[in-house]
This record gives sequence, structure tokens and C-alpha cells, in this order.
Amino acid sequence: SAAAPVTTGQVALGVIPGDGIGPEVTAEALKVLEVAAPADLKFAQTQYDLGAERYLRTGEVLPDSVLEEIRNQDALLLGAVGGKPNDPNLPPGILERGLLLKLRFELDHYVNLRPSRIYPGAARLGSPLSDEVLGKGEVDFVVVREGTEGPYTGNGGALRVGTPAEVATEVSVNTAYGVERVIRDAFERARKRPRKKLTLVHKTNVLVHAGQVWWRLFQQVAEEYPDVTTDYSHIDAVMIYLTTDPQRFDVIVTDNLFGDIVTDLAAAISGGIGLAASGNVNPDRTSPSMFEPVHGSAPDIAGQLIADPTAAILSGALLLDHLGHPEAAARIEAAVLADLEAREPGQQRRTPEVGDAIAARVAG
Amino acid sequence: SAAAPVTTGQVALGVIPGDGIGPEVTAEALKVLEVAAPADLKFAQTQYDLGAERYLRTGEVLPDSVLEEIRNQDALLLGAVGGKPNDPNLPPGILERGLLLKLRFELDHYVNLRPSRIYPGAARLGSPLSDEVLGKGEVDFVVVREGTEGPYTGNGGALRVGTPAEVATEVSVNTAYGVERVIRDAFERARKRPRKKLTLVHKTNVLVHAGQVWWRLFQQVAEEYPDVTTDYSHIDAVMIYLTTDPQRFDVIVTDNLFGDIVTDLAAAISGGIGLAASGNVNPDRTSPSMFEPVHGSAPDIAGQLIADPTAAILSGALLLDHLGHPEAAARIEAAVLADLEAREPGQQRRTPEVGDAIAARVAG
Ligand SMILES: CC(C)[C@H](C(=O)O)[C@@H](O)C(=O)O
Ligand SMILES: CC(C)[C@H](C(=O)O)[C@@H](O)C(=O)O
Repeated sequence: SAAAPVTTGQVALGVIPGDGIGPEVTAEALKVLEVAAPADLKFAQTQYDLGAERYLRTGEVLPDSVLEEIRNQDALLLGAVGGKPNDPNLPPGILERGLLLKLRFELDHYVNLRPSRIYPGAARLGSPLSDEVLGKGEVDFVVVREGTEGPYTGNGGALRVGTPAEVATEVSVNTAYGVERVIRDAFERARKRPRKKLTLVHKTNVLVHAGQVWWRLFQQVAEEYPDVTTDYSHIDAVMIYLTTDPQRFDVIVTDNLFGDIVTDLAAAISGGIGLAASGNVNPDRTSPSMFEPVHGSAPDIAGQLIADPTAAILSGALLLDHLGHPEAAARIEAAVLADLEAREPGQQRRTPEVGDAIAARVAG
Repeated sequence: SAAAPVTTGQVALGVIPGDGIGPEVTAEALKVLEVAAPADLKFAQTQYDLGAERYLRTGEVLPDSVLEEIRNQDALLLGAVGGKPNDPNLPPGILERGLLLKLRFELDHYVNLRPSRIYPGAARLGSPLSDEVLGKGEVDFVVVREGTEGPYTGNGGALRVGTPAEVATEVSVNTAYGVERVIRDAFERARKRPRKKLTLVHKTNVLVHAGQVWWRLFQQVAEEYPDVTTDYSHIDAVMIYLTTDPQRFDVIVTDNLFGDIVTDLAAAISGGIGLAASGNVNPDRTSPSMFEPVHGSAPDIAGQLIADPTAAILSGALLLDHLGHPEAAARIEAAVLADLEAREPGQQRRTPEVGDAIAARVAG
């Protein structure tokens, strides 16, 4: 039922450079993508002008016609969107809900994929963890975050707003359909990794209704994957594990909101948001998946070409992997690893220099 | 309207030692409490046998008659409750919802108070953060976590359970009544601290319904506290700040679930769950507040007298502060600080030795 991955020929690649440092890091991701892709894979790019700048200029966030065009791409690469903090002309949340989340929901990106690695040689470059914690061993895990339901649906409302009797509800919606498919995807990913371990993260002791469907389906799907070791952690305990023993994790599967929180902590401990890549994946390939760095548009440093494009470049690796080219993706990862190991603390390179260096390692 | 704090005379102290290491650490907390309390303050203790052991023995979690007795105490000290992991006779969540959360809701503990400090000399004893992060300065903040609503109400349900069409909802309930009072309490606490800074933590860009009432009431109450500097952070960004720049925080106010998550991270970075104290506070004093270490009953090390009672002892300090004895509370804190600074990495002391050492320092 799932469409086959695009392995040769022309890939229709939708590129949303976005705002601030978005276009700067996207240029480097594209540079490395071109070098890493197999000779018989060509990217036909279409650029989409979306984000804070377009909104401020035109009042448009994501016109229906643009969404329909985007739907027809094979894959999407996004830089970052977002205007200056507290811009009075940019209503809070408008780009998040009108563009980023809208794309996740419309394109059914039910797997939000966020890998974390602490590369041995590069550990001290960015991680806020102590040598003692990092010294316990390599960190290499991936979070499979549900992307289309949970507390992210906008469900809920408010009554008697602005009065002392106001009550506002926020409803987390969890369907067997939505929970099972993401759990199944996580088991598939765990099965393909050397350690074959999958940890469910939730708060089943308090969020009983949502917790029950996650817990039951996790146990149920586990029966089909006897080769995968399973584990469970409450979200609060994960805070402790990720900071004191991140080595314990291999694949984590969790809901949309817990995944949002856990992946920022994961990014923080593994060298910072400057290295964190992500994929908004539709594993059924019924619409294009979208790859983007976890970081924002950083308007404060935009235009100076000092942003680190590594997260965008690693997002390109996830894109290649999704398109069916794991070897090409691995080449990018290896090149990034080598580049990270060669970095000196305090070293300053311009954005294109980092891209060039990684592209050169991929090429040679 | 609020009952006056108990400053002299007899304090009716309900003690719930609980399971595992609970009784061991509670004994030390009581030892230090007695020494630290002003001469004219006497504790009349009543012990309550509650927790996993009682449940396994009698099938009772919190009988109504016991709850009514507890309601009449002036303050409560809890050790920890919880049985062996995966005990088939102990239904998951039964103690959490039937005892711990039940007490918070029944006694209207709307302020869940969780201070975090990284004591300069003691930094390297337990924090998983790097010297670089810790070297930026002292860490001293307190989380004011809402304790009686949000996603903790049990609201929600499930339809077509066990079928592929199942849908389960979990409803976060946020009332102006509940949100305003905890925000107000947080502003009061911020005003009394040297830095006078209060950060609201939420996810207003996604959880719009709940986010709006938190945001609006935060702005509104802020007008009455022009001396307090206000700030806002999304919960995901807090993950990054707490691990790379924890010095930035002074007082944090947040909802029940975000507070649960943030305080475990706060405990982890500031020396671990072995040092984290908490108060389930009813600031209106319409029922007794309850003080407890954040850690659990640790059945694996129970009976060996090797548990660190520091978190329980610091919870005793919060209790004294709540009863109107900030100087006595400060004496305990100073004694703990001195004890922490005198600790050697790898040093092993028995639980009563730690209590004795801290009590001796309090005594002078
Ligand atoms: C921008 C925001 C809506 C988004 C989220 O909450 O998912 C971001 O934090 C992320 O993790 O991609
Ligand atoms: C045991 C559990 C119900 C509780 C909570 O979620 O509040 C605990 O994690 C805490 O933080 O006190």
C-alpha cells in the first residue's frame, strides 16, 4: 500500500528557506545533498516563499494553492521560520499553527523523527553534561514523536473568558489509529538498530485515559516484535535519565507534547540545538515528508553568515535516508562526525565554510 | 481570611513515613526538625500508616476516616510511598492517584513548591552538568507548580476501547480561580527574593486554550507587582535553559504537568533527586500542607540505612518556613550546605549518621 521510495531519477524537492538564518543554512544543506546523492538521483527544486517575511509583506501564511503545490513534491526541506521576537505585527503562534503544524497535519506527518548522538570526539564541543556522564559511553538514540494528535489538535475551548469564572480546557486526543501506527513505526526502526531497544515514554500513572491506549497498544504491537527489548519510563523520570545516563536509550516512542519536550532536552545534551536534525515523516508516502533543523530562525544573527548549518545538513541526511538512500545519508553523517571532531573550541567559521568543509569530506 | 501560621505552642504534626526508605529518611527529618525548631514550638506527632504496605496488607489506600484525621493536623511530613516495581498485587497508579494526588486535591495543595539550588562547593558531588555550565554562577531558583488542576484532574475518557476505532481523551482543566491564585502566590514569593524575577512556563503557541488563560492572568497579576521582573519561556526551551544556563531562573510558575517535568529536570541538574525537597502547600491554611522529598521509596535499598536523608531534611525546612519560622528553616539549609560542602566524593555514611551530622550543625 505504501508508495515505493524514490530511488533514481528526478526528485521533486520543495524548499522552504524561511526567515532569518533559514535561507543561510538551507543553502549549505542543499550543497551537501547534491554532493552526497547518488549520481542517478537529481533534485528538481521548487522554492516556496513562506514564513514571517511573507506574512508581514502579504498577510498570507500558507495559501491553499501553495499547500496543493507542496503536496505534489516528493520531499520538502525547510530552513526555519519566525520573525523578530515580540514583533507587534506578527500575532504569537500564527506561524506555528498556520504553517508548521498545519503542514504536519495536512501532510499526515505522523512520525516526527529526532535522532540524538553525542559523538565521542566532539563531546566537549557543545554538551552541557559533565565528563563523568559523557564518559560512560557513546550516546546514540532516536525519538519517534507522534506528530498528528495528542494535545496538538487544538481541541478544547474556554467559557466565561475574562471573568473570574473562566474555565479553559485543552484536550489531548489519542486514537488507536494514530497511536498504533506510530508505535509500529518505532518498533520497525528499533528492529533495524543494533541494540533493538524501544522505550515508551508517557505519564500513564496520571494521564490514565491517554495512558491506557498508549500502554495497551505498545504491549500489543510488542508481541509482533519479540526481537525488540521494550521498556517504559514516565516523562519525569526521563528528565533524570537523559541528564545522568543518556546511554540507556536506543529508540524512544512518545506522544506529541512529551516528544516536543524530550527532543529539546535531547538536543541540549547532545551538543545543542545547532546540531539537532528532524524529519516530519509520512511513512506511508501518501504525501511528502519534510526535513528541518530543530533550531529557529535566530533573527539576531541573521545576515552575518555565522549560523552553524550542521543541523540543516543532517536534516538533509534524514531526507536521503527517507528517499531510500541510507548509504548516502551515512556518508553525510560520517562527514559531519569528522568535521565535528576536527573542530577546535572557540573556532569561528562562516556558514558556507562549514558547508564547504562537510561537502568536501562527503565528496572525497 | 487566611488562618495565621502556627508560631508558638504545639504543632499537630501528621507523619506518613510510608514505604521503603520512607521511614528511614523521615526519622532523620524529624530529628533535625526537633533540633531546629524554636524552643517554644513543640511537635505533637501522629503517625499514619499509609502506602504500599498497608494496601497490600489491608486493601486500603486512604480510608475516609484517616483523611478526616489528617485534615485536622497543622502540617504533614511524608517519607515516600510505593512498593516493589511491577508487584502484580499493586495496581499501577493506585498509590499515586488514591493517596498522593488525592491528598493534594482534598487538602487543596494548590502550590507545589520545589526549590533547586546548586551549592557552590557541592556542585561536583552530584550535578551531571559540566564545570563550564556550573562555573557561570550559583543556581538558586524555586518552581511554583500548580497542584490541583491542569491535566491532573482525571478528566477525559475513552470510547470503543480495545477496537481499532478507539479514541481516548485527556482533558487539561484550567480555571481562572485556580490559575490566578497560583500565579499570585508565585509573585508574592518572587517579591521576597533578592532577584525578584518570575518566569511563566507554558506552551502557549500550541496549547492555545489553556495558554490564553495562563498568559492573560499572568499579565494581569503582574500589574500589581511592578517590582517583579517577568519573563516567559516555552516548556521545550526550558529544557535547554535548565541544562545550559540554569542561573537565569529565580521563580518559575507553571502548570501541574509542566511542573512535574521541569522539577525532575531541576532536581537532576542540582545534585539529583537525593537532595530535592518539596512542599504541597495550601497557602490559605484551610488545611494542612504536606512536605516530602521528591524521591521515591527506593525499595531496592530499603532496610540498609544507606539512603541519603538530605531531601527529607530539607523538606522539614520548608515545613518550618511554612509554619512561620524562616530563621529555623534557614538554619537547616545552612547546616545542609555545610554538610554538603564537607562531603567527599565516594564517601559512604549511613542514613542516621547524615541526620546526626546535620542535626549537630543545626544545634551549633
Ligand atoms: C514551533 C512549535 C510549534 C514546534 C512544536 O511544538 O512542535 C517546535 O517546538 C518543534 O519542536 O518543532
Ligand atoms: C507520583 C506522581 C503522581 C507525582 C506527580 O506526577 O506529581 C510525582 O511525579 C511528583 O512529582 O510528585
